[in-house]
Amino acid sequence: MRLKVLQALRSENAQKDIVIKGWIRTRRDSKGFSFLEINDGSCLKNIQAILSWDVISKDSLSKFTTGAAVSVKGDLVESPGKGQKWEIQVNEIKLLGEAPADKYPLQKKRHSDEFLRTIAHLRPRTNKYGAINRVRSALAFGIHKFFNERGFFYVHSPILTGSDCEGAGEMFTVTALDLQKINKQIDFTQDFFGKKAHLTVSGQLEAEILACALGDVYTFGPTFRAENSNTPRHAAEFWMLEPEMAFADLEDDMDLAEDLVKWLVEYIMNSCEDDIGLFAKFLDKELKNRLDLVLNSSFERVSYGEAIHILQKSKRSFEFPVKYGLDLQTEHERYLTEDYFKKPVFVFDYPKEIKAFYMRLNEDQKTVAAMDLLVPKVGELVGGSQREERLDVLETRMDEVGLDKEEYWWYLDLRRFGSVPHAGFGLGFERLIMFVTGVSNIRDVIPFPRTPKSLEF
Amino acid sequence: MRLKVLQALRSENAQKDIVIKGWIRTRRDSKGFSFLEINDGSCLKNIQAILSWDVISKDSLSKFTTGAAVSVKGDLVESPGKGQKWEIQVNEIKLLGEAPADKYPLQKKRHSDEFLRTIAHLRPRTNKYGAINRVRSALAFGIHKFFNERGFFYVHSPILTGSDCEGAGEMFTVTALDLQKINKQIDFTQDFFGKKAHLTVSGQLEAEILACALGDVYTFGPTFRAENSNTPRHAAEFWMLEPEMAFADLEDDMDLAEDLVKWLVEYIMNSCEDDIGLFAKFLDKELKNRLDLVLNSSFERVSYGEAIHILQKSKRSFEFPVKYGLDLQTEHERYLTEDYFKKPVFVFDYPKEIKAFYMRLNEDQKTVAAMDLLVPKVGELVGGSQREERLDVLETRMDEVGLDKEEYWWYLDLRRFGSVPHAGFGLGFERLIMFVTGVSNIRDVIPFPRTPKSLEF
Repeated sequence: MRLKVLQALRSENAQKDIVIKGWIRTRRDSKGFSFLEINDGSCLKNIQAILSWDVISKDSLSKFTTGAAVSVKGDLVESPGKGQKWEIQVNEIKLLGEAPADKYPLQKKRHSDEFLRTIAHLRPRTNKYGAINRVRSALAFGIHKFFNERGFFYVHSPILTGSDCEGAGEMFTVTALDLQKINKQIDFTQDFFGKKAHLTVSGQLEAEILACALGDVYTFGPTFRAENSNTPRHAAEFWMLEPEMAFADLEDDMDLAEDLVKWLVEYIMNSCEDDIGLFAKFLDKELKNRLDLVLNSSFERVSYGEAIHILQKSKRSFEFPVKYGLDLQTEHERYLTEDYFKKPVFVFDYPKEIKAFYMRLNEDQKTVAAMDLLVPKVGELVGGSQREERLDVLETRMDEVGLDKEEYWWYLDLRRFGSVPHAGFGLGFERLIMFVTGVSNIRDVIPFPRTPKSLEF
Repeated sequence: MRLKVLQALRSENAQKDIVIKGWIRTRRDSKGFSFLEINDGSCLKNIQAILSWDVISKDSLSKFTTGAAVSVKGDLVESPGKGQKWEIQVNEIKLLGEAPADKYPLQKKRHSDEFLRTIAHLRPRTNKYGAINRVRSALAFGIHKFFNERGFFYVHSPILTGSDCEGAGEMFTVTALDLQKINKQIDFTQDFFGKKAHLTVSGQLEAEILACALGDVYTFGPTFRAENSNTPRHAAEFWMLEPEMAFADLEDDMDLAEDLVKWLVEYIMNSCEDDIGLFAKFLDKELKNRLDLVLNSSFERVSYGEAIHILQKSKRSFEFPVKYGLDLQTEHERYLTEDYFKKPVFVFDYPKEIKAFYMRLNEDQKTVAAMDLLVPKVGELVGGSQREERLDVLETRMDEVGLDKEEYWWYLDLRRFGSVPHAGFGLGFERLIMFVTGVSNIRDVIPFPRTPKSLEF
């Protein structure tokens, strides 16, 4: 019977005649025996296979190199070595696929992240990228589990959109026309959709539609930005989580974000203990402290006005100016969360001028019911708001910012018919992975990152 | 305390002073009382609220119309009416958002599916579309739960791809160039990615990469086809599930597909009993039988050769020819599953000429280890294969079909280094929803469908 490495290592008993299939991480030879470390991706740890040279011919041994795929059959027995409870005594070994040592790029040594990005098809076979992929998977499942348990419905907002101004950034254009053949002004009425199409930058507006019918919903899917910025924090394609709640205000919104982040941190620490341990040991010495801080603190909540005041009276010399009416920069956000409060912080009630048209106008007529959640190391992890549910106020705001109300007829309809207070937020999934792993470049938490001039695999 | 309608209806005890928020489905007035049916999307059922006219002024009553959003406070008491265990005696009612009867399109009457597509922002407030959305959400969660319990990792394959020939259909082009300004031959080296970009038609090739590192994985996300076909089964944007298993052959692949489909059918019958009941009652009288059949039968497995033989000796007059070497059409598929076997059927070992280059060549050198799962009503629900893991055989196949091996260098690398037998399949998520609901148009199981000339919302 085949066992995955994870199953074998968690076995409660010795077992006869099991089969392990996986890739050789290392081989060590000593006195008539080879010691193979075999990994199958099911967990960070390898299982050690003890291979007597009686079992194979000396010739074939040379093919069992780092990276080769093997199937071994044998007995799972208690290991005398330390750090491992079980090992396998091999009775039979088969080579499934070789990995010639002179050609296979992933030999047992340290490789730079930059080099590994050029072999993104092989890097998940390393400890670090295997762990990142497992954490990514577990966080995604955790998100679904969290919302499912709370009665939220998962909805799929469209990727293709006819709107060219969702307010969150530069958009890619999508066409079915044969651009090679175009030699004059393009006529989009002849295109697939009869008009210009774009890749979505947010599923929020559609999530609002569904919240105003189903109650509590969330989207979780890819979003896009055509911004030509080559930074460790930006990618052209990334995943975003966007919950939206009917009958909810800004307070409910912050409560949900705090519950979610705490729950996910606890979930990942339990479900990926070894993987998180790897990051804490080799990548980010502060990681465990940071995660414990999230679990054990009540998140601070300060108004934008207070935050500006705190920043102004700090004796820091910031690169960007601090002034009421200007947006907070990452340096400001990190000062607030890392130095001043020393824990996650919600900043709420921003001046309407620096926030999107759909955010609910407060009674002061100057600020809107928006919030950002700032966390150490990453800065802004969550951005959300209560949505403007009053038709007249929303129309006035749209006029102010120059949006075409005709194009948003359906969005306005939500305020014409059975309008309810509602609120939601967006959480950048890759930011979350970076926060819980300490990995500092977004290119390393996406299996096949898309950035300017980079579209391989 | 606010309760969702679902929570209230499932209450074990009478409760004082609860709050229900939702939308009025209907109002009936009788002898000093109004009977409001309130729905909040948490489930198909409404809760009945008994509103004494003593509680409100006669004037305000006129605003509590179908579609209006309300908040009611009162006591949850046993209902004397039949068909409902609980109702709420209202002490306080607030109008949150009106829905003027002369303007709100969703009055209490039957609307055609065609009309409802034009108000896709309001249709989720109907019984049918609320149910479809809840079923869609539950099936998506079910998919994650199924794979999580079996140790599969969820991986995100990229939406943007540099490959223009993944073999599964016409592709959309993506660009960040300002097409309004283009008036000559486009130079894609000046584009965002430095080359032509497309929307993916499948995440399989990337899933293979990750399976060859992590073992068992699956993708679940949007995929695209730029095919200009206006049929009830085609959309330009749809969701696809693609599991991929290392160390697996075609037999394992069929086993997984059979387990998955059975598990999901059972899951949805349990978790969305009322919603499925609605479809079974009003939409598709055969639904319950079809779902029971899936649960209680062992799926048939026949080779393509046998399937052709069965079709040829049937006395049916098919529209499309039946001949060894030709692909099966929907009419053939439905004959096999609905009439001949009367249960789900796997057809396997297709002639290589009608299947994709990456499918594993069988020993007969003529057929490949491919399989399709056919189910009643829908036809093909799943299509998969064992993948060609032998470098030389794969290269020969690529040459035969004229693919550029340079472009697939990384795909070939998987066969150069630690190659292993592996297999997977694709399941069209909307087909699955149509199968378990009986809804016959794909436009009605996607919240905001994208089809030729249709890009609203």
